[in-house]
Amino acid sequence: MQNFRFKNTAEIIFGKDTQKQVGAEVLKYGTKILLHYGSGHIKKSGLYDEVIDSLNAANVDFVELGGVQPNPRLTLVRQGIELIRKEGVDFILSVGGGSVIDSAKAIAVGAVYDGDVWDFYDGSADIEKAIPNGVLLTIPAAGSETSTGSVITDEATKQKRDADSALMIPKFAIMNPELTFSLPSYQTACGAADIMAHVMERYFTNAKNVDFTDRLCEATLKTIIHNAPIALAAPDDYASRAEIMWAGTIAHNNLLDTGREGDWSSHMIEHELSAMNDVAHGAGLAIIFPAYLKYVYKHDLNRLVQFAVRVWNVDQSFGNPEQTALEGIARMETFFKSIGLPTNLKEINITEEAFDYMVKNCKRTNGDALGYFVKLYAQDIKNILKLAL
Amino acid sequence: MQNFRFKNTAEIIFGKDTQKQVGAEVLKYGTKILLHYGSGHIKKSGLYDEVIDSLNAANVDFVELGGVQPNPRLTLVRQGIELIRKEGVDFILSVGGGSVIDSAKAIAVGAVYDGDVWDFYDGSADIEKAIPNGVLLTIPAAGSETSTGSVITDEATKQKRDADSALMIPKFAIMNPELTFSLPSYQTACGAADIMAHVMERYFTNAKNVDFTDRLCEATLKTIIHNAPIALAAPDDYASRAEIMWAGTIAHNNLLDTGREGDWSSHMIEHELSAMNDVAHGAGLAIIFPAYLKYVYKHDLNRLVQFAVRVWNVDQSFGNPEQTALEGIARMETFFKSIGLPTNLKEINITEEAFDYMVKNCKRTNGDALGYFVKLYAQDIKNILKLAL
Repeated sequence: MQNFRFKNTAEIIFGKDTQKQVGAEVLKYGTKILLHYGSGHIKKSGLYDEVIDSLNAANVDFVELGGVQPNPRLTLVRQGIELIRKEGVDFILSVGGGSVIDSAKAIAVGAVYDGDVWDFYDGSADIEKAIPNGVLLTIPAAGSETSTGSVITDEATKQKRDADSALMIPKFAIMNPELTFSLPSYQTACGAADIMAHVMERYFTNAKNVDFTDRLCEATLKTIIHNAPIALAAPDDYASRAEIMWAGTIAHNNLLDTGREGDWSSHMIEHELSAMNDVAHGAGLAIIFPAYLKYVYKHDLNRLVQFAVRVWNVDQSFGNPEQTALEGIARMETFFKSIGLPTNLKEINITEEAFDYMVKNCKRTNGDALGYFVKLYAQDIKNILKLAL
Repeated sequence: MQNFRFKNTAEIIFGKDTQKQVGAEVLKYGTKILLHYGSGHIKKSGLYDEVIDSLNAANVDFVELGGVQPNPRLTLVRQGIELIRKEGVDFILSVGGGSVIDSAKAIAVGAVYDGDVWDFYDGSADIEKAIPNGVLLTIPAAGSETSTGSVITDEATKQKRDADSALMIPKFAIMNPELTFSLPSYQTACGAADIMAHVMERYFTNAKNVDFTDRLCEATLKTIIHNAPIALAAPDDYASRAEIMWAGTIAHNNLLDTGREGDWSSHMIEHELSAMNDVAHGAGLAIIFPAYLKYVYKHDLNRLVQFAVRVWNVDQSFGNPEQTALEGIARMETFFKSIGLPTNLKEINITEEAFDYMVKNCKRTNGDALGYFVKLYAQDIKNILKLAL
């Protein structure tokens, strides 16, 4: 186990009707807020009205900025920053999923920075201050409701980049699983894949003696694998929606990588997919993760066997660990297909011609290379993309 | 899953040599501290000198109060409160295990309260303020390093009582597994039982649809069951010591009872054992928990079967769930014996004559009754004690 620091200060307010508490929670931190949200869905569902009523009841003043799109855009972030400066806002409330929260986090750090907010995302500046933010979560997937990270796309250059700081952690995350009943099946499935990927990016590590966090990771993966099909078959099933929502938060609040080093190369490769054609992040991950594991599994066969046996209930072939490992990867791919996700690039119309651009554009996390479990250089990334064809 | 709130603000600073950071961490919160510790063990081990050096290097002024005993005493708490008031202390640093931390928490809330600190423990007052506290942990067991609770014994009346408040959560917990190498085997084993009991008090719940937290509980239990025997056989084994230490914190930071109601009746019955003859808390739990489960297992046979199969790897008898459940309880008892713990009252010289007093003195958590999984009335508590003979 590696030395680590862990602290996550977000308050979770979880359960039925909890959205009604949003005004009272906001009031603990601010009196004039930016209400940030996405498409008109929250207006159709009535959630928008509930939020406004709760803010009014708490005498919280607000300005609003909707229109956040999946793979949230830098242009809107810049609009939010201007709005905040003009209006003297002291708190940002996101109502939505990961894209809205990530956009809010970018606004929160950009508004109190003299330079351009993209500096934090291209790595040329460190985050030192932020306006506090809070979340009313409607889509369990990104884990952004308690995470330290934010991912923004510069639509002009098609670059999708992340920034990270404890200052971005939301003060609170209000989570009512009932709000997820109306999610389309595809989005539910994408969320499941995203949550699983957050765990797997941490699970595949070179750190040794990480028994406890391995088991916590496995517990989280099994929860999603068990509950996602139930929620897809019965969208109004509170129990499975609640399990997915809570597991989605824990998957990405940094508990699961205490004492170990994550990899994140599949996420970085996926960012190129969604920057290229706006595929949903979870769907892109369902394509990349099986290909990635097929490419690297020999690097730590024991770990892949453990993954197959403990997570996918593969009947272990003790004399043939490779077979066991490959069966685990195959079951993961079958699972993604079974919940309606694409598992190859053809399904999202990306062909080999795009690979050179994607490889070139892919942000490296480890010097020239990508990832830590196995260092991936340009040719490796290309080989993984080929396995995903 | 029940509605819940969860927030744990403690910062974990985990790993080799982390004790050297204690001065710098303390300085974030205070400049004149109370250094609180137990027996002379930290002086013999050299840890005391390391702490003093680190505090001096950070220019942190301190007064000290040692002498905390297992089942920490109200009298010493009152001394600590006087000392703090006299010396103008603004932060309390505990160096030790659960007893030292619980004593420090009591001092922290008592020092800024007009009445007597015992008011918080007998339930006649609520905690509204506290001096901040931090921890350098030397014994993984109680989970007090990030918990909201504190347990104190009034040695005059032999009453052992708990108080609970988010204000008691330590600001930081520094945890170096190397500091636990020198723990006697018996104390290591008691710690393992205490950690397991913290999980099991939450695991045996009537809340339905708690799949994720069930799995997190099982992951934590399996970590202890796997690693405690390794640490006992090789006390200097960093890996197993680290797993136990980190699992011990998560077992009691309230993550594992999100969405569910804990029981805590075994803990309350155990408190009577240790108030009676000062048996170590973990040893008392190793006696009470098997007896408790033998008494209540029919209340939710499915849950007991799940416990047997998932935690104790019992080969499930599908046609005979009772057999499976009882085999799980038997394996737990065998495990406690295998790590050198007592599993009946005779071994700690408590006989049936004491039962009436113990039952009468036992603090009820649920009106007239004890516990939530199964409500235990006086005769039930007595029956459990009989099963523990």
